[in-house]
Amino acid sequence: MAPPPPFTPNGIVTLTTDFGTRDAYVGAMKGVLLVIGPRLRLHDVAHDVEPQNVLHGGIVLRDACPYFPEGTVHLAVVDPGVGTARAPVVALAGGHAFVAPDNGLLAPVLERLGAPHAAHRIERGGALARHLPARPAATFDGRDLFAPAAAALAAGLVRPADVGPAHALLEHATLAPARQGDAVVGRVVYRDRFGNLVTDVRVADLAGLGPGPCAVQLPDGTRLVLRRTYGEVASGALLALVGSEGHVEIAVRDGSAHARLALEPGAAIRVVGTPA
Amino acid sequence: MAPPPPFTPNGIVTLTTDFGTRDAYVGAMKGVLLVIGPRLRLHDVAHDVEPQNVLHGGIVLRDACPYFPEGTVHLAVVDPGVGTARAPVVALAGGHAFVAPDNGLLAPVLERLGAPHAAHRIERGGALARHLPARPAATFDGRDLFAPAAAALAAGLVRPADVGPAHALLEHATLAPARQGDAVVGRVVYRDRFGNLVTDVRVADLAGLGPGPCAVQLPDGTRLVLRRTYGEVASGALLALVGSEGHVEIAVRDGSAHARLALEPGAAIRVVGTPA
Amino acid sequence: MAPPPPFTPNGIVTLTTDFGTRDAYVGAMKGVLLVIGPRLRLHDVAHDVEPQNVLHGGIVLRDACPYFPEGTVHLAVVDPGVGTARAPVVALAGGHAFVAPDNGLLAPVLERLGAPHAAHRIERGGALARHLPARPAATFDGRDLFAPAAAALAAGLVRPADVGPAHALLEHATLAPARQGDAVVGRVVYRDRFGNLVTDVRVADLAGLGPGPCAVQLPDGTRLVLRRTYGEVASGALLALVGSEGHVEIAVRDGSAHARLALEPGAAIRVVGTPA
Repeated sequence: MAPPPPFTPNGIVTLTTDFGTRDAYVGAMKGVLLVIGPRLRLHDVAHDVEPQNVLHGGIVLRDACPYFPEGTVHLAVVDPGVGTARAPVVALAGGHAFVAPDNGLLAPVLERLGAPHAAHRIERGGALARHLPARPAATFDGRDLFAPAAAALAAGLVRPADVGPAHALLEHATLAPARQGDAVVGRVVYRDRFGNLVTDVRVADLAGLGPGPCAVQLPDGTRLVLRRTYGEVASGALLALVGSEGHVEIAVRDGSAHARLALEPGAAIRVVGTPA
Repeated sequence: MAPPPPFTPNGIVTLTTDFGTRDAYVGAMKGVLLVIGPRLRLHDVAHDVEPQNVLHGGIVLRDACPYFPEGTVHLAVVDPGVGTARAPVVALAGGHAFVAPDNGLLAPVLERLGAPHAAHRIERGGALARHLPARPAATFDGRDLFAPAAAALAAGLVRPADVGPAHALLEHATLAPARQGDAVVGRVVYRDRFGNLVTDVRVADLAGLGPGPCAVQLPDGTRLVLRRTYGEVASGALLALVGSEGHVEIAVRDGSAHARLALEPGAAIRVVGTPA
Repeated sequence: MAPPPPFTPNGIVTLTTDFGTRDAYVGAMKGVLLVIGPRLRLHDVAHDVEPQNVLHGGIVLRDACPYFPEGTVHLAVVDPGVGTARAPVVALAGGHAFVAPDNGLLAPVLERLGAPHAAHRIERGGALARHLPARPAATFDGRDLFAPAAAALAAGLVRPADVGPAHALLEHATLAPARQGDAVVGRVVYRDRFGNLVTDVRVADLAGLGPGPCAVQLPDGTRLVLRRTYGEVASGALLALVGSEGHVEIAVRDGSAHARLALEPGAAIRVVGTPA
């Protein structure tokens, strides 16, 4: 069995939530972090994850967290199950620590960082107890449990193994396109601010298609040759390209594919090879 | 008379405004803060307070600022009266300093932190003068007065008593529910990003109701038993519960009470006891 | 010929983008910055610039960046031309460094800071090469080129002249109102969060109008006397005033001029003198 991945905190904590930028929730968490670790360096990743959309939050974590230095603690709260039995955890992978509910939020980033990873269930007793509020709210573990755990880890006041027993993360449906004969069938999984529609099909999934360039087939039958950059099509044109994280995306140059097409996350797409 | 509360700056400045995240206003304030105190640690609390909604801003301050370490300077600007006679102030309470207009914005957080507190009116002359721009704009005290005052305080360049004479904060209508026989009558005062409707009724206000569990009665006659967590009702169900700051809230599990009901801030609600 | 403006990094990096606060793009850039310069102090200016609106981003930079301390690196990405031939540059002016695409985004702030300025084209080879990813994405220069350049500059790992050859910034249409007889004809160029309509007419452009106070004439013929503050008109009234950066603005006290009028950026306005 692989040894647990090492984790040495560097004093940086990132924050990713669906708490928005109009309420007190993010500020309260920052306050708690700084009481426990006054010298921590806090960095907002994104707070406008769609409310309670765990997959959205998971993709943001996957596409942002691995770029931070090793030793970073990533505090992630998209937590529709707060107050239920879902486990609060610290997960370790690739030199990073993630503090989050075990509800699937971490699945995409752990898959990206690859094995081995390890996790501990956060317990309210034990080493963390002295950093927790005496009367936690039933509806705000972000402030009363996750932020204290993240701060204590990042400040070096507790080690990952101190927060609670080893925990096997639940299996969560991963984003995985399927090969069907000469095609790869995937789904739109994400819409970004620009209206780009990101799919779960990666460049690596396209090996063996061909021999010509690949093309994306939309539900309405439209076929879009896979391009390298926006600049290859005219302004206002629909195109398919490989996005900055290696996934096939559908976009409109200088516009919004989401506004143009009636495609929402969940819609099926096919990628096929073309004749040479 | 109580002595003035002590205040020792810790180098942290929080920012809470209705300036949004699409304009230059927040950035200009951060620049001014860093020119005066290059080593200050700035932390955004929330910038998407509803434009010129002083009560909204006040609730955000109340629910976020007390979680920061003592010695923090909280810069708060929701200022529809900029350019009028409202006083710019530094208020001290609970080891925190607040720099804001005296327009009611600070009332909720000062009530939460409790007496004693003290305030000084910020004067453009005196100790602060050397940190102020020679030609301030008439419409942006956030940049040209409040940010310099906050930075000079947080960097230890001036003391609170140096910014100007003692100031009696105006009385502002506080959020206070009323007892009417066997019921507590309050109001919806806030809607958060998730569509939760927060009222001004606190757990402490419910003492003596009963003998059974309390229930919230909406204007349309709907009665909701007060729950502890979302998990006690089915997904999509309307419920009442006590929020993370101890106030009665109306919510929908995995949904938005604001979208479900036609209740806006200001709407009256009643909390009643139920038979044993 | 003027010598190049000196630039000594102070360790501060500001971020201004149209990436929003719901996706991973901003977080990925912060991660890259911190891997190259672990002690850099990052400050968000604004991320909700309208998607691909270069003029909007340019005005935000103009109105925020000059307030930061000299030695600050301003990372600015509003980049509809990513993947095309537009040049990535480092521009120096007034003791500040700007890292951005040469697409007009920097024109307003460079005009504000005044000559002399200098620029270098960012090359992927040379001194910067060791900080760049081996396989950059074709669509995310913010993460794979601009952020590494900004971090290396701010951390003192490269000097501006090291990133590439001297570059003459493209001429971009500047915001410039025109004198027409007894009037100054300008345009609405910006709408802020409050619905204020900011024009390209500056106070300095009004010299010689008069002899009475100036008035702004809207396309529908409405005339608004130029006021000093909101407090000079009743709540809900339309007014013209000089904004915090010295430009003529059209506003509604306690309301939104954008919602009241049907004026969008681009609309022409006239400023005229009035009889004594």
